[in-house]
Order: sequence, then structure tokens, then C-alpha cells
Amino acid sequence: ERLTVDQMIDAATRVEGLTGVEVVGLWHVNDDTVEHVNRRIHDAGLEVTCVTPDIWAQAKWGKGSFASNDPAIRRAAIQEVKKSMEWAKQMNCEVVDLWFGQDGFDYPFQADYIANWQRIIEGTIECAEHLPEIKIVIEYKPKEPRTHCHIGTVGNTLLLLSQVNKPNVGAMIDVGHALMAYENTAESAALLQHFGNKLFYMHFNDNWRLWDDDLTVGSVHTIELIELVYWLDRMNYNGWYALDIFPYRENGVRAATESIK
Amino acid sequence: ERLTVDQMIDAATRVEGLTGVEVVGLWHVNDDTVEHVNRRIHDAGLEVTCVTPDIWAQAKWGKGSFASNDPAIRRAAIQEVKKSMEWAKQMNCEVVDLWFGQDGFDYPFQADYIANWQRIIEGTIECAEHLPEIKIVIEYKPKEPRTHCHIGTVGNTLLLLSQVNKPNVGAMIDVGHALMAYENTAESAALLQHFGNKLFYMHFNDNWRLWDDDLTVGSVHTIELIELVYWLDRMNYNGWYALDIFPYRENGVRAATESIK
Amino acid sequence: ERLTVDQMIDAATRVEGLTGVEVVGLWHVNDDTVEHVNRRIHDAGLEVTCVTPDIWAQAKWGKGSFASNDPAIRRAAIQEVKKSMEWAKQMNCEVVDLWFGQDGFDYPFQADYIANWQRIIEGTIECAEHLPEIKIVIEYKPKEPRTHCHIGTVGNTLLLLSQVNKPNVGAMIDVGHALMAYENTAESAALLQHFGNKLFYMHFNDNWRLWDDDLTVGSVHTIELIELVYWLDRMNYNGWYALDIFPYRENGVRAATESIK
Amino acid sequence: ERLTVDQMIDAATRVEGLTGVEVVGLWHVNDDTVEHVNRRIHDAGLEVTCVTPDIWAQAKWGKGSFASNDPAIRRAAIQEVKKSMEWAKQMNCEVVDLWFGQDGFDYPFQADYIANWQRIIEGTIECAEHLPEIKIVIEYKPKEPRTHCHIGTVGNTLLLLSQVNKPNVGAMIDVGHALMAYENTAESAALLQHFGNKLFYMHFNDNWRLWDDDLTVGSVHTIELIELVYWLDRMNYNGWYALDIFPYRENGVRAATESIK
Repeated sequence: ERLTVDQMIDAATRVEGLTGVEVVGLWHVNDDTVEHVNRRIHDAGLEVTCVTPDIWAQAKWGKGSFASNDPAIRRAAIQEVKKSMEWAKQMNCEVVDLWFGQDGFDYPFQADYIANWQRIIEGTIECAEHLPEIKIVIEYKPKEPRTHCHIGTVGNTLLLLSQVNKPNVGAMIDVGHALMAYENTAESAALLQHFGNKLFYMHFNDNWRLWDDDLTVGSVHTIELIELVYWLDRMNYNGWYALDIFPYRENGVRAATESIK
Repeated sequence: ERLTVDQMIDAATRVEGLTGVEVVGLWHVNDDTVEHVNRRIHDAGLEVTCVTPDIWAQAKWGKGSFASNDPAIRRAAIQEVKKSMEWAKQMNCEVVDLWFGQDGFDYPFQADYIANWQRIIEGTIECAEHLPEIKIVIEYKPKEPRTHCHIGTVGNTLLLLSQVNKPNVGAMIDVGHALMAYENTAESAALLQHFGNKLFYMHFNDNWRLWDDDLTVGSVHTIELIELVYWLDRMNYNGWYALDIFPYRENGVRAATESIK
Repeated sequence: ERLTVDQMIDAATRVEGLTGVEVVGLWHVNDDTVEHVNRRIHDAGLEVTCVTPDIWAQAKWGKGSFASNDPAIRRAAIQEVKKSMEWAKQMNCEVVDLWFGQDGFDYPFQADYIANWQRIIEGTIECAEHLPEIKIVIEYKPKEPRTHCHIGTVGNTLLLLSQVNKPNVGAMIDVGHALMAYENTAESAALLQHFGNKLFYMHFNDNWRLWDDDLTVGSVHTIELIELVYWLDRMNYNGWYALDIFPYRENGVRAATESIK
Repeated sequence: ERLTVDQMIDAATRVEGLTGVEVVGLWHVNDDTVEHVNRRIHDAGLEVTCVTPDIWAQAKWGKGSFASNDPAIRRAAIQEVKKSMEWAKQMNCEVVDLWFGQDGFDYPFQADYIANWQRIIEGTIECAEHLPEIKIVIEYKPKEPRTHCHIGTVGNTLLLLSQVNKPNVGAMIDVGHALMAYENTAESAALLQHFGNKLFYMHFNDNWRLWDDDLTVGSVHTIELIELVYWLDRMNYNGWYALDIFPYRENGVRAATESIK
């Protein structure tokens, strides 16, 4: 059984120390509900930390969003992001999350790598210019749902950021995604901060390095987690510390909606 | 039993279709022998395709070369590269290979990521300026001999290239290193060419994706190899097609010395 | 949109060379429909190659089936398998597939390894004795949906088979699951045949070795596929050659229902 | 610079809490030196915990030891193990370690899996019968130096043990090897103890799951280490707790020679 948005907000208020929540565009807010949801969240003493447009879960995104071969799909994906930026602004939220989960390939010989990268670059620039006061964060992940995603590593993310070259476009690190890429998350955070102060947001969780298991923070890679927190301090990270864990066997609600600062 | 350099050159002449060989600085050439080796190679109808300075095999490089905490080691490593550049020039060879195998870390909390990256950037700039007519190629590899190497992926390589920002500094792809990084080599090649024509050299081999097994070309990842060759053509790659295979159980000599163009 | 069972059977008849289909218990057959479905399949000129009880997809199996800590869940899972064995018999199908996808753990310190293994052994023995003329095939897989599944490798499968020690209990190899376990599938098939003629069934597909991507057969690991087919012949494998591919981006129906012999 | 055997023993006495050391056959003891080495070790207040025959480091083992296609090599390997068993007996050491590092393959189509397994089984039986009072421990490892080793997982080890079926043949777990195989070492230990009390010895170390990095114990997988120790207690493990770490950048001697009980 799924909780209603109001039930989720209630659940969030019962988590000690929590000061913010994330929302997904169309799942939790749309043009009709954004005012209501915003008021409920702020009345509950919480902030909105991030709005994530859904450019990956619906069937129409199955062969790509910003990088789709179909210009109508590309246009729709960009439009979805712009809407989420507007909702973010309405809710006093600074951050919109771009995760290009469907922009990649499953097989050899399937993708036109250059066309795809160019489309991602151009789409991101268009979104960045739409509302320069909203920060766009690129969330990289090496695979899933595609077997290979173009924006899969911290290095590829820095390439994208340099091609986009906008002050309001930076990155988030999802700890589990970095572990999947055989990165030390502390180094990835340090690189993003050192080369342009581009670490805008953090998703915490853990996994077994091969898949995005979204486990409890520090449950497997305890030492690396402590090192990450040390480097976030050292590099003056001042964004949110958000959870993206998925304790579905533990009767949890999806915890990506929970953040502290 | 190891072959002498002369024996290696003789062996290379017996490989049908081979038109060039690689040499490693100090292993195969030094100030005293470079003239002799150069003459022997060219008399055998071969070219020198690449000179690789040894900044990784000797004990002194064990805790780093360009990124070492010890300024004397850093200086020695840069000096080694400059010597290899000079030998390359003497032998009409265009390419010197920088592989930062020891510049990384084994444990969490072991490395100062920012200091290490800055040292690699600065050292590479200094080398690039030493002989602008010689091409330096960055050879990335995710791990081994360190459990984590800073210059480990195509994305990190592009970050380094953009920070160095010299026309004579580009990259080589060692196919096996890219496989270890869960890259599709065709995409990696396309990115290096698209963003600045930076693919200067290629090492071919194969492995099982988890380690640099240096197996025979195409023996495991056959389809991806064909895709790579297609994209090299499509992106107008015009460097060497070199082998870096290590058939030591098959009584082969180290085959990194063999190249075709 | 999901196809009805009748539509699926129609679709199967349009695949050239196909001679059999798999069904999943409760999804495609139950006590009320088994006669109808059986007649439709045989009227279409096909055989039923395997019946797979669902002991993994429903919410109640989330913390385990045969190895659950809850005796009522264990009892229900065993009952589900017995029902599938009966349906198999009614449809002249020899094989029932036991995949213990939920019997494992996600975290350290979460499972009682010995209790879980003992429960799996005892449950399998009980099922084997229910209808000795029906073959039970153990389908091993290292992970997913749990981060670790107990019956995850060919070696663990052979351990289970030796503990169960029943002539009608053997194994199936799902090629992709073996690839995830860093096995050479040819060796796994050879071991199962050599140590007791225990390879009863085969699922073909491909992936990138890290996850069960269910890609088209031979699309990535072409040479290993050829070696597997060679060893199946050499070891006198005489079961079905079934597909378990999932071409959902290619508008395919789930292809696990398609088999040739 | 390598230490002499006497220097190594001296070094071992300086490690607080250490009560035993391992030796490698031919490296540290032979027919001429075994008396001297034994006296030196016991005079230093230490025991010999394990003798490991070298059936993997010399060039002649490059294509296999017990599983070699060459009967003379197989004979020599078995002879090497018998000698180590005799030296173990002379030194009041209970355990001899069989690691089949070279018995595997590098490429598809390279190995006759059945012949190789049969040779390993028969050779192990012959050794077990040579001195029944000496325990043989099978040390499994998925890869390296071959890209695939036959005795690579706890399941394959249990298969070998059941085929050999001798009371003096059991297993050791090298923690890092189990991590490479995506095993939870606690489960592997529990299985070996539950199915026949077959866990005779333990090697402790850590790594990054993809290679045998031989890092300091608990430095990466801290929680899993604690779980392992808990299960060793729970399953009444009463063998040695030996180190197999390789701190060569930290100026350490190879630490496989250090054990506590």
C-alpha cells in the first residue's frame, strides 16, 4: 500500500532530527497541488530540499529522455525539468535533480555516443537558462535501468559540467552510485569541490558495490563513510545531507524524502 | 630468461604485418644505447611507436611518482619523463606514454586527493612544455598496482587534459583498462575524439573486466572489439594500433612492443 | 499492457522453431485454468517445458520462502511448489523450477545461515517426495532480489543436491546467473553432469556479468556461449534449451516462455 | 632486500601476542634445514602453524600442478606436497595448505574441466593417505594467477571435499579470497563447519572485493569482519587465526608467517 503525500509528510515529522524532504515532480507535486503540498510541508516545520523531475520512470522514457532519438521525447523531457524548476521556486527549494537513468544503452552498437552526449549537453543548457536562480544537480550512476548510462562517473559528470558551463549547474553524489563506479566517494566529493565548487547536494546510502542496493548508511562501508564526512567538512560542503535508502523489507517508506542540514 | 633488446627486435621482425615497436625508458634505451637501438629498429624496417618512461616499476616509485609526497621523488619522475621525450625525439617517435600506476592509494584516509591531483597536473604541464613537438599520452587505469589510481577512467582523464590544457597532451586507451572501468571502449574513444581530438594512441588486448589480464585481442569481448574498431574509423583515429598483451604462459615475449599502423 | 495467457500462446506459435513454453504457477495456471491452458498449448503444437511456482514475487515472500523464519510462510511456500508439481504432471511437463530468490540476506548479521540452509534442504526433500516422477530443478543466482542469496553458485547448488540426495532433484543453469557468479558456464554444466548427471534444464540469455540483464543470447559473451554449447553436447545434455530474455525496450513479451529442444 | 629465515623468526618474536608462524616448503624449509628452522622457531617460543608447499610460484607450475596435462608435473606436485607433510610432522605442525592457484584456465576453450577436476581429486586423495595424521587444508581462490581457478568458491571446495572424502582433508578460508568470490565469509565458515566440521584454518586480511589486495584486517570490511569472528565462535572453530597480509609499501615483511591462537 502506498502512502498519500499527506501521510508521507506526517511520517517525516516523526523522524527525529529531520529538517527537510525531497519531492518527485508529478508523483508528489503538480501545478494543481504544489501550493497545498508546499504549505503542508512548511506547516510541518520542514523544508523542501530537492525536486526531482520524473524523466525515467514512465514508459515513454524507456529509450531515453534528453538523449532520445525522438525529438518529441527530448522536448517533453526538457519541459518536465522546467516544470520541476518552477515548482522548486514556488516551494523555496534551491535544487532540482537531473538523473539521466534512461540515457545510455544496453548492447554494443546500440547508441550514437556523440549525438547522445550533445543532446544531453544542449538540453541541460536550455534548462539552466530557464531559471538561473534554481540549481540543477547532475546525479551520476553507472548503470540501471540501462546496462550503461552515459553520465556514469564523477569524471564524466565533470566533463558534462565543463561543456554546460553554467554557474547554476553542478552535481550531487549519491554514495551508492559512486560505490558502483569503484570510486572512493571522498575523492569524488573533493574533485567536485576543488574544480569549481560544483558539489551542490548529497544522497547517503550504502550497497555492496555492484548494484544500487540503497541500504542503511554505513552498514557495509563504514570506514569510507567516515572518510567522506571528513572530506565534506574539509572541502566546505554546505548542501543538504539527504537519505536515499529503500528499506522496503523493513516496512519503511521510501526514505529519499528525508534530509537533514 | 629475458631476451636482449637485439633479440626482441629480431623477434619483432618475424611478426607478419608488424610495422613498429614500443620501448620502455631505461629498460630498452638510455643515453648510451639510444643511438644503437634506434639504428637497429630502423634497419629492421620498423618504427618506434612510443617511448614509456618507467615511473612505476622501481621501488622508489612505490608510494607515487608525480603525486609523491616527497618533492625529490616528484622531481625524479618528471626528469625521467623528460629523458624519455628526448629519446623519443632522437628516434623519430612522436609519442611518450604517461601511466600514473603508483599515483593513488590503497586504503581509505591514505591520500590527500587535492594535493595529488594538483601535483599530477603541474608535473604534466612541465613535461608538455619541455618538448612541445612530442605528444604525451595519458594512459588511464582504475587500479593496480594501487588499489585505486587517481587517473582511472576516461572521465578523469578528460578532467586532467582540460586542466593541463596543452595541445601536445592527449590520451591513450588501453582496451583492458577501459574494460576494468566498466566502460564501453567505443564510447571512451568517441568522447576523447569528440572533445578535442585527444585520442593519440591505442593499446589492444582483452580481459575478464575485473583485472588487467592482457589476453589476446577479442578473445573474450569480441563484439565490443568490433564496435571499437568501427568507432575508431568513424572518429578518424589516425594513431597506432598497438598490442599490449602478455602471453607469458604461451611462451610469448611481452607483446607491448608490437604495433601496426 | 499485459497479454492474456491465450495471447501469449498465440505469440509463441509465431516464433519459428519454437517447440515449447514455460508457465509460472498462479500467473498462467491454477486449479481452475490448468486444463484449458494445457489444451490451448498442446493444440498450438507446443509442449510445456517447465512450471515455475511463484515463491518470490508476492509481498509475503519478501523475507524468505523455504528459509523464512515464519513457519506458516515456509509451509505456504512448500505448498505452492507441490501445486506446481501437480500442474506440471497434468500438463505432461517433466520439470518444476525452484528459484530461492528471497532466501538470503541484505546485511551482515541478518541471517542464521545454518537454520536457513537446513530449512531449504528439508523443504526440498519434502517436495521431491511429493511426486517423484516430477523433476525439481534448482536455479541458482548469486543476488537479486536479496543482496546475497544462499543458493548462489554452482558449488552451493551441488552442496544442496548432495544434502537433498534425491534422484528427481537436479539443477538448471541460467546462463546469466552463472555469469554473475564469475563462472564459466561450460565448466558449471560439465560439473553438474559429471557429478551425478544433475543438469536437467538450461536458461539462455546474456548480461554484463554484474547483474541479470537478460539480454539476447550471445550478444556480449559470444565465445563463451559457443563453448557452453560444445560442452552441453560433450556431456550429453538432453534437456530443453530455453530462453530467459527480457526485451522490454524492444517491445518483446517476456521470453522466458519460449523453449526449443 | 629479503630477510633470511633467521631474521624472519627474529622479526616474528617482536610482534606482541604472536604465538605461531607459517613456513613455505623449499622457501623456508627443506630436508637439510628443517631441523634447524624447527629448533629456531620453538626456541623463540613460537609454533609452526602451517606448511605450504610451493606448487604455484615456480615456472614449471605455470600451466598447472595437480591438474597439469603433463603427468610428470602432476607427479612432481604431489611429491612436493608429501614432502611438506613430512616437514610439518617433523615440526609438530598439524596443517599443510593446498592452494591450486595454477589449476584453472585463462581463456574459453582452454581447459578440460572434467579431466582437471578428476586429477585434483585423485592427487588430493593420494596426499591424504600419505600421512593421515597431517591435516590438508584446501585454500580456495576464484582467480589469480589464472583468470579462473577451478577451486574458486566455498561451494566448489565442499564439492572437492565430498569427492575426496578423507577425515584429514578440510578447508581454510582466506578472508580476501572469499570476498573476491562475493561470499559473506561468516556464511562460508558456517557452511564448512556445519557440513562436516571442515574448517581447519583461517587466513585474515581485507581487500576491495575484486582482487587479493592483502590489506590490513578490517580496514575496509569492518562489519563483516566482526560478523565472521562471531560465527567462528558460534561454530566452535578452534584452529589458528593467521594473518595473510602483504604490507610491502609499509616496509612490512610478508605477514603470512604470523599467527595467533
